[in-house]
Amino acid sequence: MINAFYKEMTGKESVIRQFFDYSRKRAAEFGPDSVFDFSIGNPSVPAPESTTESMQRLLREKDPVSLHGYSPTLGQPTTKEAIAESLNKRFGMNYGANHIFPTSGAAGALSHALRAVTQPGDTVIIFAPYFPEYIPYITGTGAKVSIVPADTDAFQINFDKLEELLTPEVSAVLINSPNNPTGTVYTTETIRRLASVLEKKQEEFGHEIFLITDEPYREIVFKGTDSPFVSAFYDNSICCYSFSKSLSLPGERIGYLAVNPKAKDADLIVPICGQISRFTGHNCPSSLMQLALETELYITSDLSIYEKNAELLYNALTETGYSIVKPGGTFYMFPKSPIDDANEFCWSAAKELGLIIVPGDSFDCPGYFRISYCVPTERIEKSIPLFEQAFRKYK
Amino acid sequence: MINAFYKEMTGKESVIRQFFDYSRKRAAEFGPDSVFDFSIGNPSVPAPESTTESMQRLLREKDPVSLHGYSPTLGQPTTKEAIAESLNKRFGMNYGANHIFPTSGAAGALSHALRAVTQPGDTVIIFAPYFPEYIPYITGTGAKVSIVPADTDAFQINFDKLEELLTPEVSAVLINSPNNPTGTVYTTETIRRLASVLEKKQEEFGHEIFLITDEPYREIVFKGTDSPFVSAFYDNSICCYSFSKSLSLPGERIGYLAVNPKAKDADLIVPICGQISRFTGHNCPSSLMQLALETELYITSDLSIYEKNAELLYNALTETGYSIVKPGGTFYMFPKSPIDDANEFCWSAAKELGLIIVPGDSFDCPGYFRISYCVPTERIEKSIPLFEQAFRKYK
Repeated sequence: MINAFYKEMTGKESVIRQFFDYSRKRAAEFGPDSVFDFSIGNPSVPAPESTTESMQRLLREKDPVSLHGYSPTLGQPTTKEAIAESLNKRFGMNYGANHIFPTSGAAGALSHALRAVTQPGDTVIIFAPYFPEYIPYITGTGAKVSIVPADTDAFQINFDKLEELLTPEVSAVLINSPNNPTGTVYTTETIRRLASVLEKKQEEFGHEIFLITDEPYREIVFKGTDSPFVSAFYDNSICCYSFSKSLSLPGERIGYLAVNPKAKDADLIVPICGQISRFTGHNCPSSLMQLALETELYITSDLSIYEKNAELLYNALTETGYSIVKPGGTFYMFPKSPIDDANEFCWSAAKELGLIIVPGDSFDCPGYFRISYCVPTERIEKSIPLFEQAFRKYK
Repeated sequence: MINAFYKEMTGKESVIRQFFDYSRKRAAEFGPDSVFDFSIGNPSVPAPESTTESMQRLLREKDPVSLHGYSPTLGQPTTKEAIAESLNKRFGMNYGANHIFPTSGAAGALSHALRAVTQPGDTVIIFAPYFPEYIPYITGTGAKVSIVPADTDAFQINFDKLEELLTPEVSAVLINSPNNPTGTVYTTETIRRLASVLEKKQEEFGHEIFLITDEPYREIVFKGTDSPFVSAFYDNSICCYSFSKSLSLPGERIGYLAVNPKAKDADLIVPICGQISRFTGHNCPSSLMQLALETELYITSDLSIYEKNAELLYNALTETGYSIVKPGGTFYMFPKSPIDDANEFCWSAAKELGLIIVPGDSFDCPGYFRISYCVPTERIEKSIPLFEQAFRKYK
């Protein structure tokens, strides 16, 4: 019989998806210019030419039997080595190839990391607002989710609430900085304080609390933003990365996890990830992609458009009267809705103005909405009067 | 704390791996000619030139933002359409694109299919000898494994034992034809009888029993072998496929599952697979690979070497006195060990002769050994005297 749990889920469409679908429908009916779709976080800039050339070179020059052959269970050794070296050079770390596990994007990295450092029944802490897929990633391991409410003043960390929720059942804490949906970046002060709280609690409970850091936006940080490399501040940490945004390769499903060499059982965690793959049928990412990345670890796509769009939108919207915590990176911002019911605000903006934005309820933070500004700047410019209209309707 | 279950597994190296490692060590010490490694099922022929060209053409001509963009959760529509059409044309089926779910190889297909049609606590039946990874694929879903002992006469199905084990708890039956490790192919008669037994039991139990077919070797079938397309014979079936062997792309992790359009809830199973991915962090295979395959669905690598090797080896070994069920496809055969303890036989062959073969114990079928003959024919020719020596030592 088909699985009842998953079957029930197929009926439930995510709100983000509903807005996206409405946008498609409206575009089909009234033309693409009638819609300003800020609902989805798809990179809008192409992969670097050198990345395409790296793939082409492998296809041209490397023996296909070895190029497309099985990757070792724990990943291509040369790729792992190159990733470790790049992190060591850039962030003063001391990773070895054995601490790197190539994964199917950040989703694969997070799912492996979570399974590796929890037992079924443990608790994992996350922070609102959060990427909604964290819930299935965590519950899929058999762990429970505990949610720290948002610090809506600065979208840093609500430490009082965190300390309250840090019970002995907690075996991992998952953070996402630079953050989706807020665009904010945890400061060095925030990370230091987080590390110190976790260290204190580890001591108190007599067991490790792993810090899992979801960092797909690490390379999209705007000028002047304090953006610490989290793993440098806390030993029991696993950094989860994806090349989806930095190299504009989301469909290639390529990322990695990097186990802090100072973590407890550091040398065991990657082999454990290899075992986890056997139970989920996940296996390594594409061997062509793994190999192609080796030369692409110090570059990014031209990400400057995201900063330009952020600046333009932030200035215009705050001038209009919106209240926004200024994004320090990513291609998201998370303004306060002019009315309490962000859901109503977003649907009205969609239907009356063709402005497709997503209510914060989807990220467990009602009263706010997310703008994904990974779109051509010209679309941002044209949308500004509509954001003004939407605001004026309610104020 | 790190996960105790997976941690314990990291200590346990598979026997196949031990033989493979011994082979590497011996080759390093005495030179590659000192080893005849028949332990691993890696394709030895290159991907078709047109497949490489298909990847190159996409990299050259397609807009990179769309080429490497997120694939829809349920897979690239054009790829799904092309796969459905190819199956319909070749096997007289009636798949729609909505019945096709691209996966990370057969491992991903099997893991999704198993989760889709079982509830935790259900039982899944498999048949010895079997690919050892079936155990984690099944237990990873929360289901139990029930094993039908081998039909060592012909490596078809031991139906008496099957009927005995077909209890009401069974929600799925998993077969692998053409088979690893035996190289045999289930005949039309076997498949008809299997379908009829399952239909009878479905009726009796009042619930579906899904037949999951693992078919990565579908295209490697030797002349004159009866090789039915299993899903044509049983409605509640899900076909799991990989391009690893047919196009020699194992490292690219690309395959699919195809839900029989006549299955119960046929239109729900692919959406269910999309939900399952969220809990395992698995997601779609590489978008480049999905798109590149669209033009490659009616061709294969030059697989003729496998048949040539099979013929050569089967004739020489049976002449020597080995007892072997003649393989009908794949690049494996599964001779009877000259002594009861196949483990002893294989280690002695490895250490005394550099002949690396794997004991049947690894496939839950003691007293046999597997030869993977996906190697250059010249290596097969040179190994024959060694197989003779190994046999003579014990007879």
